[in-house]
Amino acid sequence: MARDPFHNVVRRALEKEGWTITADYYEIDLGEFKFQIDLAADMLLAAEREGQKIAVEVKSFIATSNVSEFHNALGQFLNYRDALAIKEPDRTLFLAVRLPVYETFFQGSFIAASVQRYELRLVIYDVEQEIFTK
Amino acid sequence: MARDPFHNVVRRALEKEGWTITADYYEIDLGEFKFQIDLAADMLLAAEREGQKIAVEVKSFIATSNVSEFHNALGQFLNYRDALAIKEPDRTLFLAVRLPVYETFFQGSFIAASVQRYELRLVIYDVEQEIFTK
Repeated sequence: MARDPFHNVVRRALEKEGWTITADYYEIDLGEFKFQIDLAADMLLAAEREGQKIAVEVKSFIATSNVSEFHNALGQFLNYRDALAIKEPDRTLFLAVRLPVYETFFQGSFIAASVQRYELRLVIYDVEQEIFTK
Repeated sequence: MARDPFHNVVRRALEKEGWTITADYYEIDLGEFKFQIDLAADMLLAAEREGQKIAVEVKSFIATSNVSEFHNALGQFLNYRDALAIKEPDRTLFLAVRLPVYETFFQGSFIAASVQRYELRLVIYDVEQEIFTK
């Protein structure tokens, strides 16, 4: 299974903010298929804090092409969100993006418009400090 | 550049139906980046017939996971469609899917709902005969 290189960074950042990790490999079982089985997809983290439930898709954007990684991140986010809406509608999905990628690639007008259009919920993480900056 | 293994099959199927291929590697230049430069993405075909303009994203779904290929196909389709809306709004985007994949994976309720929700325009191609069946 593919684990994003920064999966553990995001896990520790969540814990620092008081989240309890309830699944390190969160799987959404739709019967037709389990999203967790998806070899090429990044694993989701599931966490809870004071009754609030979240799932986090971790993206490092270290592939050769940010655009191609964004295609994948967008499709995966929408499919996961739609799957959650069926199976666990009280869990909110976030896309975790590294700070330097957020400050550059995500500021481009096309990507910024896409984030807004598809209502991607972003959280931004700092790899060195293992914290969320936004 | 990644060329889908069935790129030429779809090209010939288009020609059989009277389309003129106007670009074998159609590129959408948004200034910020050219989608054509996207190494991991499949190339678009551009074609015209009687004043109608289309672009076709070819997907073979021969990766290890159909789900993961669908994540990518969906994200890429939406980004391409949004880019076309800016640069060339009179060109309609289609996603070309192989017949056996359409008859199995795409009939699942989750995928079928996703196709409808995101208004993916599908064309279905037969690899042996190099024609569109739908």
